[in-house]
Amino acid sequence: MALVVQKYGGTSVADLDRIRDVATNVARIYDEGNDVVVVLSAMAGVTDQLIELAMRITEEPNRRELDVLLATGEQTTVALLCIMLEAMGYTAASLLGYQAEIVTDRAFGRARIVDIRVDRVKELLADKAIVAIAGFQGRDAQGNITTLGRGGSDTSAVALAAALKADVCEIYTDVDGVYTTDPNICNTARKLGRISYDEMLEMASLGARVLQIRAVEFAKKFKVPVHVRSSFKPQEEGTMVVEEEKDMERLVVSGITYSKDDARITITKVPDRPGVASRIFTPIGEAGIVVDMIIQNTRKGGLTDITFTVPKSDYQKAMGLQEKIAEEIGAEQVLGDKHIAKVSVVGVGMRSHSGVAATMFGALAKENINIMMISTSEIKISCVIEEKYTELAVRVLHNAFDLNHV
Amino acid sequence: MALVVQKYGGTSVADLDRIRDVATNVARIYDEGNDVVVVLSAMAGVTDQLIELAMRITEEPNRRELDVLLATGEQTTVALLCIMLEAMGYTAASLLGYQAEIVTDRAFGRARIVDIRVDRVKELLADKAIVAIAGFQGRDAQGNITTLGRGGSDTSAVALAAALKADVCEIYTDVDGVYTTDPNICNTARKLGRISYDEMLEMASLGARVLQIRAVEFAKKFKVPVHVRSSFKPQEEGTMVVEEEKDMERLVVSGITYSKDDARITITKVPDRPGVASRIFTPIGEAGIVVDMIIQNTRKGGLTDITFTVPKSDYQKAMGLQEKIAEEIGAEQVLGDKHIAKVSVVGVGMRSHSGVAATMFGALAKENINIMMISTSEIKISCVIEEKYTELAVRVLHNAFDLNHV
Repeated sequence: MALVVQKYGGTSVADLDRIRDVATNVARIYDEGNDVVVVLSAMAGVTDQLIELAMRITEEPNRRELDVLLATGEQTTVALLCIMLEAMGYTAASLLGYQAEIVTDRAFGRARIVDIRVDRVKELLADKAIVAIAGFQGRDAQGNITTLGRGGSDTSAVALAAALKADVCEIYTDVDGVYTTDPNICNTARKLGRISYDEMLEMASLGARVLQIRAVEFAKKFKVPVHVRSSFKPQEEGTMVVEEEKDMERLVVSGITYSKDDARITITKVPDRPGVASRIFTPIGEAGIVVDMIIQNTRKGGLTDITFTVPKSDYQKAMGLQEKIAEEIGAEQVLGDKHIAKVSVVGVGMRSHSGVAATMFGALAKENINIMMISTSEIKISCVIEEKYTELAVRVLHNAFDLNHV
Repeated sequence: MALVVQKYGGTSVADLDRIRDVATNVARIYDEGNDVVVVLSAMAGVTDQLIELAMRITEEPNRRELDVLLATGEQTTVALLCIMLEAMGYTAASLLGYQAEIVTDRAFGRARIVDIRVDRVKELLADKAIVAIAGFQGRDAQGNITTLGRGGSDTSAVALAAALKADVCEIYTDVDGVYTTDPNICNTARKLGRISYDEMLEMASLGARVLQIRAVEFAKKFKVPVHVRSSFKPQEEGTMVVEEEKDMERLVVSGITYSKDDARITITKVPDRPGVASRIFTPIGEAGIVVDMIIQNTRKGGLTDITFTVPKSDYQKAMGLQEKIAEEIGAEQVLGDKHIAKVSVVGVGMRSHSGVAATMFGALAKENINIMMISTSEIKISCVIEEKYTELAVRVLHNAFDLNHV
């Protein structure tokens, strides 16, 4: 007997048939003697439809009111799941964000959870009810509805699991676990049985869209064991995301990830004097643009080239800003490139193994894939390459690090 | 400068264009220097669609959860209206039932308002915001979402107007006021400038679907002036529903109403002894069936015929119950008739005028319309007739009481 928090994403509750599958799985776990708390997303596509509806009124809908609108999505799914469970003879109760006392700050549309008071949830569990909680939403101190941003339901689930001290937080999704790389481009990709929080963080932030990065941070902070598994095959084991363990599968590299979401900007012949980097990046930060990699090469004659990446969606804005700045600081020119990709190798094993970088660079070189930028952390190495080589690079690296073998 | 509560029904917020019209009207009233509180229904058809969705799961959806589901309808419209108003440059804030502290009992699906705490609304008004409140919904003492039942938004609006001591509660609907009778079947029907609460109560309960009966009761109890008017012609005066005044338009009869919603059941040759009526009506009441008219005729030999009307939707169930009871109590037989209608004349003037009944019966007799049942109250007389004569009866009575002339 355990306390299980389950989260089902939008494709898992896309219609009544899928919601019936969810109810069946929830009931099965409950019948095994567990307490079950279910966190749901909105039906697939609904959040986008609601945003589109608001955008038909104005390009910048009032954020408080947009959250009120979006919150209806999860409200609908929790009510339907509870109606389904009750019709099946179970006791079920839905709680919306404010009813579950998921308290957030007031950053509408991207609120952060600051507190969860689980008294009401515990009361319902004590009454042997299955509790379905609307993901993605909370309330601020004043009682306004807030939403947590894209993928926020993952965060809701993990935060609830932490607050409830649940035995496990199961994330049901449309993939059956975390893979060594994207199976769609590498047919030897293999499902991982376990992965550490840190590796998952790198995987999540680098483009493996299985689990929201904030949810992983939450899980790591509160040591919540997370089980990523398939809602289509709910009886199959997925991937456990857990604390790093001594006896953890001892691969040097756990996975290869890639992202095509960034663009590269280079400012050439920047006068190399104090304050120049600040001049370049302050306006970018003020415009709300997130810079990922930054590289500075020294040239001769007190000049330097500065290269950085920004999300493709902010590329035009960033280019505009930089062209103005380049003129002001007397740089030569601003070059941009949207056709780049980032491939990364991730693994806690890197901490104690040397030669990972050499293997990576060698494998890419062998295929004549030029490396434009490199950045490293304790457990990952990322290379920016030409976008057209992305799939080839992923397959080559997957093979170079022997990930196709258990 | 006044405090105006406005309520817009489903057809008035049916799509973004209609919501834009509402926003324009709200803004106009606000710009005239008034404080404005707007109560909205769900978009036309949405509540029915949500009920249908739940019914696809089970014929008897859990009532608590059904209310959670239905409450999304009004949540959507208040958010959209506020997004619209904000985009027009106004300050607007939506409040859901629980945020506006509309406290109800726990009768899910047909909750009654027990308290409204308007502090938050007053705060927002003091900040010069237009406040849009989700109609039809509230919360019980424990924080569960409740809904008020069909037409509940009218009740929300009037109750809020009472709690806020508003100067007027404007009910915007798809008709432009209260008519002497249904203009669709009597082309000389005339819009009334004023009508008393009591007359409106009789009109509402007898089938003129302009204003929900509970809303009128609320308005009467708290003396809220209600202005029924058209959302399509918002600048035209509609009908004021107010306390009966000395100088009120002094017609004997204010209106003719009709209803085709009932069916008639007769039990013949019932042994006329104490307790028999109770035997007949107790199971009907226990089955949740509302009986409207009851008539008992005495026959010879200690036998009696008992006739009553029930909603057509409960007709089969009631017939089944009565056939069983008739046998038990030794009555002769149970006769049923679904093809009946009720026509009524309503008017506070009846209190001081005699001859209204005679005029009514005479007018019907002249057209050979047979009267099957009669019931009267202080300000109305109702006759049950054959359904096929409904329209004819309405026109004849409208003419007999001179309602086509001002």
